[in-house]
Amino acid sequence: MKFLDDNFLLRNEISRSLFHNWAKKMPIIDYHCHVSAEEIYKNREFKNITEAWLGGDHYKWRIMRSNGIDEKYITGDADDYAKFEAFAESLEKAIGNPMYHWCHLELKTYFGYEGVLSKKTAKEVWDKTSEVFASGKLRVRDIIKMSNVAFIGTTDDPADTLEWHKKLQDEKYETLVAPSYRPDKAVNIDKVGFIEYIEKLSGAVGYKLTSLELVKKALAERMDYFDALNCSASDHGLDCAVWNDMSDEEADKVFKKALNGEALTPAEVEGYKTNLVLFCAEQYARLGWVFQIHYKALRNPNAVMFERLGADTGYDIINPDAPSAQLAPFLNALNVKGVLPKTVIYSLDPSDNAFIGTLIGAFQGTEARGKLQHGSAWWFNDNKQGMIDQIVNLANLSLLGNFIGMLTDSRSFLSYTRHEYFRRILCEVIGNWASDGELPADVDYLGQIAADISFNNAKRYFGLEGKIR
Amino acid sequence: MKFLDDNFLLRNEISRSLFHNWAKKMPIIDYHCHVSAEEIYKNREFKNITEAWLGGDHYKWRIMRSNGIDEKYITGDADDYAKFEAFAESLEKAIGNPMYHWCHLELKTYFGYEGVLSKKTAKEVWDKTSEVFASGKLRVRDIIKMSNVAFIGTTDDPADTLEWHKKLQDEKYETLVAPSYRPDKAVNIDKVGFIEYIEKLSGAVGYKLTSLELVKKALAERMDYFDALNCSASDHGLDCAVWNDMSDEEADKVFKKALNGEALTPAEVEGYKTNLVLFCAEQYARLGWVFQIHYKALRNPNAVMFERLGADTGYDIINPDAPSAQLAPFLNALNVKGVLPKTVIYSLDPSDNAFIGTLIGAFQGTEARGKLQHGSAWWFNDNKQGMIDQIVNLANLSLLGNFIGMLTDSRSFLSYTRHEYFRRILCEVIGNWASDGELPADVDYLGQIAADISFNNAKRYFGLEGKIR
Amino acid sequence: MKFLDDNFLLRNEISRSLFHNWAKKMPIIDYHCHVSAEEIYKNREFKNITEAWLGGDHYKWRIMRSNGIDEKYITGDADDYAKFEAFAESLEKAIGNPMYHWCHLELKTYFGYEGVLSKKTAKEVWDKTSEVFASGKLRVRDIIKMSNVAFIGTTDDPADTLEWHKKLQDEKYETLVAPSYRPDKAVNIDKVGFIEYIEKLSGAVGYKLTSLELVKKALAERMDYFDALNCSASDHGLDCAVWNDMSDEEADKVFKKALNGEALTPAEVEGYKTNLVLFCAEQYARLGWVFQIHYKALRNPNAVMFERLGADTGYDIINPDAPSAQLAPFLNALNVKGVLPKTVIYSLDPSDNAFIGTLIGAFQGTEARGKLQHGSAWWFNDNKQGMIDQIVNLANLSLLGNFIGMLTDSRSFLSYTRHEYFRRILCEVIGNWASDGELPADVDYLGQIAADISFNNAKRYFGLEGKIR
Repeated sequence: MKFLDDNFLLRNEISRSLFHNWAKKMPIIDYHCHVSAEEIYKNREFKNITEAWLGGDHYKWRIMRSNGIDEKYITGDADDYAKFEAFAESLEKAIGNPMYHWCHLELKTYFGYEGVLSKKTAKEVWDKTSEVFASGKLRVRDIIKMSNVAFIGTTDDPADTLEWHKKLQDEKYETLVAPSYRPDKAVNIDKVGFIEYIEKLSGAVGYKLTSLELVKKALAERMDYFDALNCSASDHGLDCAVWNDMSDEEADKVFKKALNGEALTPAEVEGYKTNLVLFCAEQYARLGWVFQIHYKALRNPNAVMFERLGADTGYDIINPDAPSAQLAPFLNALNVKGVLPKTVIYSLDPSDNAFIGTLIGAFQGTEARGKLQHGSAWWFNDNKQGMIDQIVNLANLSLLGNFIGMLTDSRSFLSYTRHEYFRRILCEVIGNWASDGELPADVDYLGQIAADISFNNAKRYFGLEGKIR
Repeated sequence: MKFLDDNFLLRNEISRSLFHNWAKKMPIIDYHCHVSAEEIYKNREFKNITEAWLGGDHYKWRIMRSNGIDEKYITGDADDYAKFEAFAESLEKAIGNPMYHWCHLELKTYFGYEGVLSKKTAKEVWDKTSEVFASGKLRVRDIIKMSNVAFIGTTDDPADTLEWHKKLQDEKYETLVAPSYRPDKAVNIDKVGFIEYIEKLSGAVGYKLTSLELVKKALAERMDYFDALNCSASDHGLDCAVWNDMSDEEADKVFKKALNGEALTPAEVEGYKTNLVLFCAEQYARLGWVFQIHYKALRNPNAVMFERLGADTGYDIINPDAPSAQLAPFLNALNVKGVLPKTVIYSLDPSDNAFIGTLIGAFQGTEARGKLQHGSAWWFNDNKQGMIDQIVNLANLSLLGNFIGMLTDSRSFLSYTRHEYFRRILCEVIGNWASDGELPADVDYLGQIAADISFNNAKRYFGLEGKIR
Repeated sequence: MKFLDDNFLLRNEISRSLFHNWAKKMPIIDYHCHVSAEEIYKNREFKNITEAWLGGDHYKWRIMRSNGIDEKYITGDADDYAKFEAFAESLEKAIGNPMYHWCHLELKTYFGYEGVLSKKTAKEVWDKTSEVFASGKLRVRDIIKMSNVAFIGTTDDPADTLEWHKKLQDEKYETLVAPSYRPDKAVNIDKVGFIEYIEKLSGAVGYKLTSLELVKKALAERMDYFDALNCSASDHGLDCAVWNDMSDEEADKVFKKALNGEALTPAEVEGYKTNLVLFCAEQYARLGWVFQIHYKALRNPNAVMFERLGADTGYDIINPDAPSAQLAPFLNALNVKGVLPKTVIYSLDPSDNAFIGTLIGAFQGTEARGKLQHGSAWWFNDNKQGMIDQIVNLANLSLLGNFIGMLTDSRSFLSYTRHEYFRRILCEVIGNWASDGELPADVDYLGQIAADISFNNAKRYFGLEGKIR
């Protein structure tokens, strides 16, 4: 097969039919990402491919660092073309890396470039992409329209004013851009900046947060504010699955110690976190929101680069030693109270796949088909093999047909092609089963499932019926 | 390939030949399952497919719950057809799930139904299966005969009278139905009901069990009783690999504390368990029995449903955080005393595959080829990918040719087709190797290995020569 | 495909072209192995295939033990032919095991035998191989020459005189045979024999090692000695990733306690180890050496056989419970000081693959392309599936194009065919991608990468330019 042709990743007739006649046609619901609502509202322009690709994408920075490239050409002050060339050179070594596919899919889809990016072709690609950007026809809203995106769920702090979401919704922008609620800074009592954050949150609600009860009141108010702007999901980044069931009184004491700048024990930290995340989850159940749990990331292990560049700059890793099983008593505590919300669980460690597949099966409910979900292959697992592993594992241990499918988790507007990438892989997996006689070769039946996983299931799960096309 | 045709899962000529000319022809030794000897003796009839499929199979209940079905249609009081329809509807979403294959294999094998079960065909399947049940030609003994089962190893408590096993053996029933010895209730000193259980065991032997020494005496007596009824295997379900080497005196004190209703420390619990399981294993070595260890299950995490439905109702999960390496000092302690029995190790966590493959290699002996075995893909791993992973891992780290192969671990008499499913996958894996030039394409050589893994190895390993056909 | 033919493991045209036109042609750099420099210098002869294969290869012993063979035929006093026959018989069961491929590749490459080894053909193979050995044309240097080996990195203790390396280099032997520095015995303060070892090291440097400072001085001196003999790599076998950051003063106290025969706490042991390994790593950075970390082995779990046969006799296992994440603060501590050397990380637990892939990405530098490397599939993972998993994981999370590729880690001179085995698998993986349209079908581009991974990358990484052909 030719590189990246129409049947890219689709090796048999059934897979091709599932993709071309079903999955490809569905709009995109990108229910969890990190793009900026402001940039959508203002319809940001990009100067050139370096700004669009290398301006903030730590996946690409990692590729370059793995090729021994000096930081000057990555996050430093080298000129834009030199940076791009250094990236192109690094990409040559990235065979088998999802970045190799992502970049070429983006070049083909948004720029009509069908060649192979390398140090040799860097100039040609630079010129071609610069021309497209210069035309003014590839601004943020163009990309969203070309990509057939029906819904964008950004990631937002409870203290955020959501000014740009409001403007977009007031404008009745054709793609629904809704916030997601990420209260990590209120949860991370052990991180630098906690006291300052509590003050910031205080500012957002207009009263002093002198007790945990008031923090909870503030968080709940902000949830209502988010809810009015069509928020339907939260997102928690946990170092590990927390579980130390602490009373409100105890947790309040811990909170006050932290406000006083006193040192906390690990048990206190975990107790406070458990208490507060349980509170949040209960509220999500009240609002009908989806509770997303991301865990097992070990953040900022490289102190030198953290000092220099800060967080989220491409230095985080998997934490294989963080506990997982504690998720069970955590979900149970919510379930016992009758306040377990729809929940999506993502682990950064692919060894947890089977565990998660069994865990969700123990807490399903009648509120939704697939009330508990095993989240799509996340971050370091967001590649062909990682997706196949997640899909096969989910199929084995739960109902693949109810899967809510892909999200980009991305900071880049050009990454919507990752939905195409996912859909091709999904159709290839299902099509292979049918082609090998492991499923009936009933393309209408299987096509419907492919369309459901690509779009319909998420639309239903996030309560978007009537809100999006 | 057509769905579920004669060459289901067999994609090349060598695989097909291995299956059709070798593996398929072998009788079944189902050395570990949970069916009822009483039902075999009485040749139980089934009213309809709901009773046969949904009466006690928590795998199927899980499928339904994952589809948001109300418990009323699962374990509740809905009528049988409504339950079946709800299951059929859920199965539509289960593409890639072993249940999809199991159900269709069973419908084909026992009912001659070759269509696809869905909500739409539910009535048709209901009628067809009802007709077969009504004919009286698919009672339990019919199923066993149709399935060519030579041996059934049930799972039994030491206090059990084995009344039905005895009757079956007295009758000289053509399939040997033997008990397996599962002393979990005597081991689980930390579970509710321990004191009552010790009383029950006391009743079975006719004297008071006032010390751990007497418990051991009782357990050994019951082993002899089981042995006389052709028991050749035990089965231990351990939350994790226990290892706290405690003296008999200490363990006796812990036992007495428990009898007095006093609280035990985790170390006491683990010490007692280690002491008692070591004792049992030593006895198994004396009797030439096989010691089966199942570990890394986290049981009953959903308190609401445990309260409502009790244990073994489809809510257990994998415990990825339970320790594994302690199995090494445990096996070593037995080996040092010269009382390490034949042992089969099953972990619920597939991440343990490689560990187990190496562990068994460190404790082999001359008593049997493959004295220590890596057990067939268990429970949540009992699916195509899980089996392939276990087979390939075993082949890489040990001798696949000595593998004792498949067991159903099932509560359902209709699940003997899972042996067929396993054999097809086994033959496909071996056949692929030969077809790709990774093995000599010597069908007699490879066919013999396929037949050995399907039947002969287990026959030898469990000492069944001369006892079964 | 025919068993083991020219296109063994190569199923498509691109894979074949990559292997035959590129990878196969490259010399071998076996940068980490356990062969004896003395045997190379003296050009050892082998009496027969039993001596060559079964004299010290614990992989083969494991195979035999898994077949229930008595130790007499493994490490005991049975005659050589009986041992070989017992091995041949065991190998019949080893389908899917890398040993099956390794043995047949060796028989084909070094003895021209193209049949299948089994109990039946054992005599034929014995005769054929005996003839070749008797001809005197398959001595150690013949094997090295036939295998096109450019570099051999042995594994040596700091106290070693390196007498044979020196002689080989003085002789200007066409293959560079250089030592690697393995200071495990100085690190393992908790193992029997530590005090004796410190005395031995003292003897090598000519002064008493009465403090940790002096031990460090001695180790550094020995590094310089090794360096002068073209050593470019160290090798640490750690039970687990150590991390207890202990001051020099504290570590010195621990050292003195150990010298006095006092018992150490686990924290003291870990603190001493952390302190000393950090010191060593800093020195490796100074010398431009490569720091190799091997971890997660659980050694000598079988006390009976350890007593009887000692270490490294085929009884070690994977330790799935040992911590991994501690590698992050360990590498960070070196990086903060600016003394992080080029580092290759190998875990015995394949579940760590993804973790390692992310870890190396967090500590790359400009000193080398791929300064941090995920080591080739090690020991129990050194098989087709293990290699594919490592390659795909590395491709997903780092730059496959910068991979330094294969090493044998072997004690046997006949195992150079494992490089061929690796190269075939590598070319098959890359060729499949290209054949399926996941990479451009540009054979010059991909062939260069295959050649780089087979040879050029290691040559550059270990600083061998100008030193080897």
